[in-house]
Amino acid sequence: MTLPREARRAFRNGLATTTAGLAPGYVQANMVSVSTEDAYDFLLFAQRNPKPCPVLDVTDRGSTGTVLAPNADLRTDLPRYRVWRDGELTEEPTDVSHLWREDLVTFLIGCSFTFEAALVAAGVPVRHLEQGRNVPMYLTDQECRPAGRFGGPMVVSMRPIPAALVATAVEVSARIPAGHGAPVHVGEPSWLGIADLGAPDFGEAVDIAPGDVPVFWACGVTPQAALIAAKLPFAITHAPGHMFITDVRG
Amino acid sequence: MTLPREARRAFRNGLATTTAGLAPGYVQANMVSVSTEDAYDFLLFAQRNPKPCPVLDVTDRGSTGTVLAPNADLRTDLPRYRVWRDGELTEEPTDVSHLWREDLVTFLIGCSFTFEAALVAAGVPVRHLEQGRNVPMYLTDQECRPAGRFGGPMVVSMRPIPAALVATAVEVSARIPAGHGAPVHVGEPSWLGIADLGAPDFGEAVDIAPGDVPVFWACGVTPQAALIAAKLPFAITHAPGHMFITDVRG
Repeated sequence: MTLPREARRAFRNGLATTTAGLAPGYVQANMVSVSTEDAYDFLLFAQRNPKPCPVLDVTDRGSTGTVLAPNADLRTDLPRYRVWRDGELTEEPTDVSHLWREDLVTFLIGCSFTFEAALVAAGVPVRHLEQGRNVPMYLTDQECRPAGRFGGPMVVSMRPIPAALVATAVEVSARIPAGHGAPVHVGEPSWLGIADLGAPDFGEAVDIAPGDVPVFWACGVTPQAALIAAKLPFAITHAPGHMFITDVRG
Repeated sequence: MTLPREARRAFRNGLATTTAGLAPGYVQANMVSVSTEDAYDFLLFAQRNPKPCPVLDVTDRGSTGTVLAPNADLRTDLPRYRVWRDGELTEEPTDVSHLWREDLVTFLIGCSFTFEAALVAAGVPVRHLEQGRNVPMYLTDQECRPAGRFGGPMVVSMRPIPAALVATAVEVSARIPAGHGAPVHVGEPSWLGIADLGAPDFGEAVDIAPGDVPVFWACGVTPQAALIAAKLPFAITHAPGHMFITDVRG
């Protein structure tokens, strides 16, 4: 499945795999659907925290389509969803047609797959990919700027980068604001309130090679965590790693 | 008045001048205050049209302050305001304290003064400044992506740039997404539906020197025009050229 529409068709037909490595070269996105009544605060939260929450598209109320992939249906074309009620995860279906509501607004938010592909293309090794693991993610002591009922700490992902390539990694990722942009910190984890790189809050620990420097990027888990903490009556998101594949070239 | 707080204090005391050239080196902003009920559509319009509408800050409901200038009061610290009722301009006061309402949300939007200063610093001549005129602005045939009741054509400003400096002008302005970013078009006006550069829809025509190429940037008049066309029951904006001066370095 090298084309986005092929992957989306397979998901529509029930395939439920992670999208990592699928449709290479195309932008993948986090999905968050909330009621119209919660959409303003969520949009404002994203506007106020653009590094963890780079908004790629916001749909019109009730719409199941997006400009990022004109033939896609957001109710069926992701491999797996999560359904949240009052902040609790209640279902992980592969189709949310039966749960769709006219008052839903859907946010599609940039994800790190995009800039990781750019790092690899620039010759920067991505350790967790080399090691076949999920990226390590950490809660920080940096508070997001809140908006209405949404707030909480910024979550970062960490990639160990060979010291000689740190500048390249910054340069390459800075060019992709829709994929979290430049790092938020290079070097000392404790400056972000991270006590132990070996004990990530999400994902998996990664082996750090001699001469590697830990580099931290704002992470799309930040808005997910804010969403859960807000205990909305109803929300739908993608399941972790099961992204929406757009028609947009990365 | 070389410092933002000095300028704002003077405006608070009733001075009503244009802010062009004041507090050099500091970011100036367009202001738009609308009711909470209209704020979501306006924020979404800005998100969908980031080049004409680069949002610098959105205040909390009813707030008179902004993170862009912690000691400022948005009701008094601009030199002149415009008050709109049902899409009609009804007043141009120098203070809107008596009109302020608890349900107002204020948007501060980047303005071209910021990137013009950067052009000059990079050695790119800005013809309308040289000629002591307002920048020429044109309605285009490019529709903004609408959001709720907000829509309409993109408005562009035009600056004639010496051909040898067009690349520099693109490079410099592209680095400033908060000031409309890179041009939307270089060269032929008719491609934007502009029939006559000598007859701008807003501002003043500018003399084009031999060897100059017309370069077009998305313009902050776009959201103003969308706001007026939407005929909101109530809105407050800055008066043209009478911007909010922030504490942020440009």
